[in-house]
Amino acid sequence: MADAPATPPVMEQIVALAKRKGFIYPASDIYGGIRGFWDYGPLGVLLKNNIRDHWWNWMVECPPIGPDGEIVDMVGLDSAIIQHPKTWEASGHVAGFNDPMVDDKETKERFRADHLQAIFFLEPSPEMEIGKSYPVSADAPAADSIPHATVIASGPGEAASEIIANKAVRKLLGIKNVLSNMMVGASLGAPDYVTLWVESSRGNRYVYIRNIGQQFLAHGYEKTPSPYTAKAGALTEPRAFNLMLDTYPGPIRDESNKAYLRPETAQGIFLNFKNIVDTTRVKVPFGVAQIGKSFRNEVTPRNFIFRSREFEQMEMEFFCPPDDALKWYEFWKGERMKWWLSLGVEPSRLRFRDHDADELSHYSKATVDIEYRYPFTDPDYGELEGIAHRGSFDLTQHQEHSKQKLDYFDQELQLKLKEQGATPEEIKQRSRYIPNVIEPASGLTRAVLVLLCEAFTLDASRPSGVYLKFKPKFAPVKLGIFPLVAKDGMPEKARALYMELRTQFACEFDVKQSIGKRYARMDEIGTPFCVTIDGDTMSSDIVTIRDRDTQEQIKINISQVGEYVRERLK
Amino acid sequence: MADAPATPPVMEQIVALAKRKGFIYPASDIYGGIRGFWDYGPLGVLLKNNIRDHWWNWMVECPPIGPDGEIVDMVGLDSAIIQHPKTWEASGHVAGFNDPMVDDKETKERFRADHLQAIFFLEPSPEMEIGKSYPVSADAPAADSIPHATVIASGPGEAASEIIANKAVRKLLGIKNVLSNMMVGASLGAPDYVTLWVESSRGNRYVYIRNIGQQFLAHGYEKTPSPYTAKAGALTEPRAFNLMLDTYPGPIRDESNKAYLRPETAQGIFLNFKNIVDTTRVKVPFGVAQIGKSFRNEVTPRNFIFRSREFEQMEMEFFCPPDDALKWYEFWKGERMKWWLSLGVEPSRLRFRDHDADELSHYSKATVDIEYRYPFTDPDYGELEGIAHRGSFDLTQHQEHSKQKLDYFDQELQLKLKEQGATPEEIKQRSRYIPNVIEPASGLTRAVLVLLCEAFTLDASRPSGVYLKFKPKFAPVKLGIFPLVAKDGMPEKARALYMELRTQFACEFDVKQSIGKRYARMDEIGTPFCVTIDGDTMSSDIVTIRDRDTQEQIKINISQVGEYVRERLK
Repeated sequence: MADAPATPPVMEQIVALAKRKGFIYPASDIYGGIRGFWDYGPLGVLLKNNIRDHWWNWMVECPPIGPDGEIVDMVGLDSAIIQHPKTWEASGHVAGFNDPMVDDKETKERFRADHLQAIFFLEPSPEMEIGKSYPVSADAPAADSIPHATVIASGPGEAASEIIANKAVRKLLGIKNVLSNMMVGASLGAPDYVTLWVESSRGNRYVYIRNIGQQFLAHGYEKTPSPYTAKAGALTEPRAFNLMLDTYPGPIRDESNKAYLRPETAQGIFLNFKNIVDTTRVKVPFGVAQIGKSFRNEVTPRNFIFRSREFEQMEMEFFCPPDDALKWYEFWKGERMKWWLSLGVEPSRLRFRDHDADELSHYSKATVDIEYRYPFTDPDYGELEGIAHRGSFDLTQHQEHSKQKLDYFDQELQLKLKEQGATPEEIKQRSRYIPNVIEPASGLTRAVLVLLCEAFTLDASRPSGVYLKFKPKFAPVKLGIFPLVAKDGMPEKARALYMELRTQFACEFDVKQSIGKRYARMDEIGTPFCVTIDGDTMSSDIVTIRDRDTQEQIKINISQVGEYVRERLK
Repeated sequence: MADAPATPPVMEQIVALAKRKGFIYPASDIYGGIRGFWDYGPLGVLLKNNIRDHWWNWMVECPPIGPDGEIVDMVGLDSAIIQHPKTWEASGHVAGFNDPMVDDKETKERFRADHLQAIFFLEPSPEMEIGKSYPVSADAPAADSIPHATVIASGPGEAASEIIANKAVRKLLGIKNVLSNMMVGASLGAPDYVTLWVESSRGNRYVYIRNIGQQFLAHGYEKTPSPYTAKAGALTEPRAFNLMLDTYPGPIRDESNKAYLRPETAQGIFLNFKNIVDTTRVKVPFGVAQIGKSFRNEVTPRNFIFRSREFEQMEMEFFCPPDDALKWYEFWKGERMKWWLSLGVEPSRLRFRDHDADELSHYSKATVDIEYRYPFTDPDYGELEGIAHRGSFDLTQHQEHSKQKLDYFDQELQLKLKEQGATPEEIKQRSRYIPNVIEPASGLTRAVLVLLCEAFTLDASRPSGVYLKFKPKFAPVKLGIFPLVAKDGMPEKARALYMELRTQFACEFDVKQSIGKRYARMDEIGTPFCVTIDGDTMSSDIVTIRDRDTQEQIKINISQVGEYVRERLK
């Protein structure tokens, strides 16, 4: 068995680099932070804006050619974060946007019942080998169906690594070190079925972790030991916890003025469906795209910016005739995967996952997730974007609650039906309908996380030890502009180049420190190109361009630098 | 005296156009709206993004050359809307961000005491002429110091037009029509001193309106008649109403988890001062720029998007050595005015207004507003951007409340002092300091309002009756691309041009309706250029370009269209 690795897990390194280089800081850091909130620093905001602009370009400025060969009709929107509270009654969020929550009566800790994990110690068993999988009865409710296992404790959390990182759990189990991990169980797709090989106060043991949230919800709370104290009978009954943050706009604070911070941008689009149809030239099928902040009062925010309480979304609602909905669903599924690949994400770390029938919202006819292999889910995948066929659910709900007609009269369909010889009755019936909706919904802040994970590249041969291999188009800074030394006219010449090029793409002009240190710093923040102004430049306008990935240096004329970089940003 | 004008006031026309053409909709329109919240529609979001990008470009991408000839050091930031509640204790917002609020006990109406207006009828007096100004004692507390005046009622509101638009006030005064308005009073700068010439049930009369909010606060509430019923003794004592919206993040809803939606983005910058100094290459003096949503629970949101409860800000905090603060204050004052002019705003509608000593926040050493002559303040001006010299107030407060050192060691100043022969004691004392802050703070949504007001141009000679004269760079759509007729290969040729040019700037491709109607529509949304593909194009690649402002049409080769437009967007 191997020793515990000397370096921290990749995810911790990414979080540390993100703070150290000014990508992402914990919000209110000087006040000890505020859980679930993050600030995007000088480089983080540039990275985020680059992704934002790329999505907006694909969706609104240059929408794709649709399956019928026509340019897809698309407009943008920026609706308010706070909307009329009836919005969320109609959408189902007031009644249904809940997580089941459990308290430890003694410690007052609160956690999600459906994230409850059972933790077992397994005696080292000669027939088990690291790296191999063993069948474990998937519905085993307790220890007795697992050989050599003892229920020690339960813990809140989604991934095994989180459970084991939990201080209360470590203390309960006497775990000193995680030596290695291996997968056990028939369902490798579920991250809950994980066995770790640990050094504990009882000697080296396997720890087997599985999600018992569903069983817990079904069988009650009395028998389950508290994840914080291991005491039975310490947990409260699970109760519904609404994930919407509320507030009271207006001068009078009463229930009639209670409003919510939107948990998704989508509803702002549905509310404006009628206004957009009435005031612009769009005709069904068309899409409305929106980027903006949303808020969810996650019980346990986790995994850096993956699950935070304030986050930024990129959502598009595509309104189409009911008969064409499946065609558009397939179309957007393909388009969205193309978009993620266009960010430079390694294809093997992306996958589609169709929702099972029991996962689907009651109104959804089909939903697929685009998933990414995050360092904290590896070897499994985690949610990145959902593409949902929402039927006519949303507009129907808002029509009922607002008493405003939200149906659509389809003139083209009417003509088509006439040509096809349909009866007047049929034409009347079919050419007025509530559009169906296909919704590709992704997180802008989650996209930032993915690009940071993708870019993070350890390289012991470099002074920086690590570099960020962003696709040049998304790098916060495209070009570092450096005079070799701070004299002999070089700073002035470099500054003139900076003044010229900064109007075209993001440049950084830096005079101080050795050129090696400046390159190392550019590696760490993912700047794809550096140009150095040296003696050759002063005598013959020749500059050195250094490539971040290959570390190769070539010489070109100073007048060609702009084009050199522009070519590589396409 | 003239009759009441047949058309509604300009502001109402702008609001109507903004909705009709998809710039700005009332939020939650289908649910009857939610007061103080607005949605930016397909064109509004493009206009807003254009202004946003222009500000970001001036501030972060291409910051100006400072007064010392050096490029100003500037970075961007995007901090969370929800921060640790101690933030707002330190900033003074929990204790001091209040408006004095008064209720009418009978009608339950609530309004700001400091906006209370006294309304007098003046008998028509032969010596008064419309268009002339008359001295009125500025501190007149009641009717007796004004000749021929009778106190009739008081009303809540900021501008005379609002008071008179108030239904309760109109009913109380029996006002049928506002026939004309004239300024009376020594201080033309204060919009409260306004006289209107009205047709009322008592015949034509002057109505004189002045703000008595301060007297009201000083002399008590019992004597003042209610602005809704004219009854004395109907108003409650004014009490402090905090303008921050609050919410409860986290699983437990108690006072310790109470947090606020930020009322300004600025504090997020102060919280990150230390992180930014520690993790980036900036050195004092430097600025941090941020764009984002803020929330203020205005008692009476008003004037379209001018004063709303959710709005978007563009704020920059410039950290500098205390000794240089006034120099930087003057610098940013000039830069910010240049920026507003760069939007194409008519210079005569912009002005500086220095805050009087009694207006200044207790910590501010100087503050100037850039004001704009809005249609609803005309002939007066209203707030647009504030440029404040905040001293070291903010960092000092956060240092005290967070117990984190927020001072700065200025290496360059240390060197300079050494060269100047300062004593070691003096060098030590002066080279470590808490930076002073110059803050240019403006509203992105307010900038949208200004550009809509600026662009709105009535022109009876056009089919549209009105056009939006945006500076081309800020127009939501830059180029309309139209086939003259929907046949003979013209749509295909126009579409090919659209596909080529949409990657460079915002284009709209439209096939339907007569060319005149399409031009009229482009006028109404402010598209500066239209290109028409006609028979000449099919035979010899010649297209017609139409200019929105001059309505002139010229013919150029289709291959030159892109450059033609690009040249005019610079």
